[in-house]
Amino acid sequence: MNIELIIIGNELLNGKIQDLNSHYLGQKLFQENHQLQKVQIIGDNPDQFNQALSSALEESDVVIFTGGLGPTRDDLTKKMLADYFEKEIVFNEKALEVSMAHYKRGERKYNKSKIDYHNLPLEFSPLHNPVGYAPGIFYQDKKKFIFATPGVPSEFQAMLNEEILPRLSTPDEISKHVIIKTWKLPEAYIFHKTAPQLWSQLNPIGEVSSLPHLIGVDIGVRVTGTTQAEIDIKEQKVLEVIDQSPLKEFVWHIGPESVEEVIVQKASDKNLTIGFSESCTGGLCASRITDVSGSSQVFWGSVVSYANEVKMKSLYVSDQTLKDHGAVSKETAYEMAKGAREHLGVDIAVSTTGVAGPNGGSKEKPVGTVGIGISTKEKTSSEIYHFKGDRVTLKKRFSFMALFLLLEEIEKH
Amino acid sequence: MNIELIIIGNELLNGKIQDLNSHYLGQKLFQENHQLQKVQIIGDNPDQFNQALSSALEESDVVIFTGGLGPTRDDLTKKMLADYFEKEIVFNEKALEVSMAHYKRGERKYNKSKIDYHNLPLEFSPLHNPVGYAPGIFYQDKKKFIFATPGVPSEFQAMLNEEILPRLSTPDEISKHVIIKTWKLPEAYIFHKTAPQLWSQLNPIGEVSSLPHLIGVDIGVRVTGTTQAEIDIKEQKVLEVIDQSPLKEFVWHIGPESVEEVIVQKASDKNLTIGFSESCTGGLCASRITDVSGSSQVFWGSVVSYANEVKMKSLYVSDQTLKDHGAVSKETAYEMAKGAREHLGVDIAVSTTGVAGPNGGSKEKPVGTVGIGISTKEKTSSEIYHFKGDRVTLKKRFSFMALFLLLEEIEKH
Repeated sequence: MNIELIIIGNELLNGKIQDLNSHYLGQKLFQENHQLQKVQIIGDNPDQFNQALSSALEESDVVIFTGGLGPTRDDLTKKMLADYFEKEIVFNEKALEVSMAHYKRGERKYNKSKIDYHNLPLEFSPLHNPVGYAPGIFYQDKKKFIFATPGVPSEFQAMLNEEILPRLSTPDEISKHVIIKTWKLPEAYIFHKTAPQLWSQLNPIGEVSSLPHLIGVDIGVRVTGTTQAEIDIKEQKVLEVIDQSPLKEFVWHIGPESVEEVIVQKASDKNLTIGFSESCTGGLCASRITDVSGSSQVFWGSVVSYANEVKMKSLYVSDQTLKDHGAVSKETAYEMAKGAREHLGVDIAVSTTGVAGPNGGSKEKPVGTVGIGISTKEKTSSEIYHFKGDRVTLKKRFSFMALFLLLEEIEKH
Repeated sequence: MNIELIIIGNELLNGKIQDLNSHYLGQKLFQENHQLQKVQIIGDNPDQFNQALSSALEESDVVIFTGGLGPTRDDLTKKMLADYFEKEIVFNEKALEVSMAHYKRGERKYNKSKIDYHNLPLEFSPLHNPVGYAPGIFYQDKKKFIFATPGVPSEFQAMLNEEILPRLSTPDEISKHVIIKTWKLPEAYIFHKTAPQLWSQLNPIGEVSSLPHLIGVDIGVRVTGTTQAEIDIKEQKVLEVIDQSPLKEFVWHIGPESVEEVIVQKASDKNLTIGFSESCTGGLCASRITDVSGSSQVFWGSVVSYANEVKMKSLYVSDQTLKDHGAVSKETAYEMAKGAREHLGVDIAVSTTGVAGPNGGSKEKPVGTVGIGISTKEKTSSEIYHFKGDRVTLKKRFSFMALFLLLEEIEKH
């Protein structure tokens, strides 16, 4: 089924908030073999609403609205839908039940005179809201399905999974996205220098796409078929092409998993414990690892040591090293990694110390310079790397580099 | 000027990547008093392209495309633009210079036979790309401006700031978004119970909007005028309404700054040093604080103590406390905060220890339970709180709570 998403809200167009629903919806529909055809983000404005809905009904089988269902006066979705389909807004017993259910969960009282969640356009049905007050909306117009949900991501996600997806029929074709994750090469190098034949080798097997990240490039091949066996054979063919390609040595993982998920999985398989000492990444390496469920099996901790005092006290970095080489140096990174391994009592520790900017750079150590150390029982080493970007981007790039180096080390064990 | 953004890429519709450009563009245009009218996300597909461009040219003065300018075969923007405006694609000397500049920055060689960055539709101009290979595109069709940039956020952002914004004229009207940040109350409560008059009091002064977050609600009032003095007077009126509203006690900040930015600013003003001991938030509190430029003035470090061994060694949490009350408890949070303050040598330390899930919950301590401790020289205290959400959402909510409590503590000093 072709599905179109229409996101309503001035706050998205003026940059006050970041839309998270289109990304989540795209992932979910892709997994279930539906097609997200288009996304439109429009303001709280009836003209834009009518135009967006008309064009969506022409192109797609299903239209999903998010936003504009809340309790404030700029929340106009219900009224605009009623006007578009020329329906009167009337009291709906089931809608009242949906809201009441949430009021009961929170042990609050529903004030019918002030909030109108219990009113719906005639012939529209309410959707259960497992995490909030406002009911969603469902309406079928001839063969087209129209849904509306609140814009808050937790409410949208719950309603999508429990109320919308079960109403969409499943297509006959199945598919799989085979994802080859690489690093160290820019996108243009992969297809024009390192592996110029790759695209034309993969293309007959499935739809090829290429996706550059902060560090590294993902190559995706979407294979389709009518049976799982057919999918398996095509996936195998993709893996054979990669295995014989010069790109092979730059592949760090095949599959949809993030680097932190692969680290937790592999460290867990090998019974290794890990930890960090972080200066410039400020806890980001640790936070990324702990986003993974099950990370407590392998991750013991991180010493976020912004101040030199903490580097000396918790990580045993010597005063002399800091004086001679500075906090951002190969030498300090070395001592930080070694100190973290000892202090935390882990098998592998990785350290980061760098200049995330925008201030603090110098000619010798410009913004973007980072020292990364790795320490195991057998060996400690460290190196200086250079990246570009603003402060938050640099923190991310530094953390990617540290995590990739950690993954390489885990794979050696 | 009315501006429309058209984002091209199957990878955005199938959920492989999250669009970051619309949010950035919205913020930038808002600051410069332009209006982002609409955003469309479409696939790599000529029919969708033509339809999106036609509708955009009808509604808006400026159309910006992102994506589809890279070196791979699914990058079709240039060709589709040429077809739409019926222009031949020809060699463009200036476009070659743009690409060469980046090859020189990276000391690589440009392979003219394989990459066609140097070709552009006739009468189109290249845009300088400060951080990548692919030139942007600019074309003026009657009074309409058409821009195309790569989809990679760093390239889009650089090109927007250096090449696109300077080409847009400034409107006569100026505006300001006054943002009132609150916490502890759900959105429906603010406008229907706590301060039922608020909306109608603010609405005559400017356009009111309401924006719920993971914890708390932002209320925005967009005031407009032709002089700065007029804006200042309207802003003052908004502040007076808030000052006399029952909402006042739930306001933690007025302005666009994030809680971490306010913390760094206020701690800096008061010459206070801060630190964390983090179990369930896994470094996220520290990472959020270190996203702020200048945080090194006040932030000394965080002990991310996932393993109980680290809690005992670095934070002096007693074995007995862990045995008697468990890692997730008021008692452990208390000792973690106290231990962090002593270990890190800071004025204020905040600790987090909780169950982020999806596993590890129990009847007494379900997923979403968190103990937060605060320690200063004068006093240490701790409390248990409960939240809802998946693992990553809970980490965010826990960190918000810890940061709000830290801010409250800083304000007492």
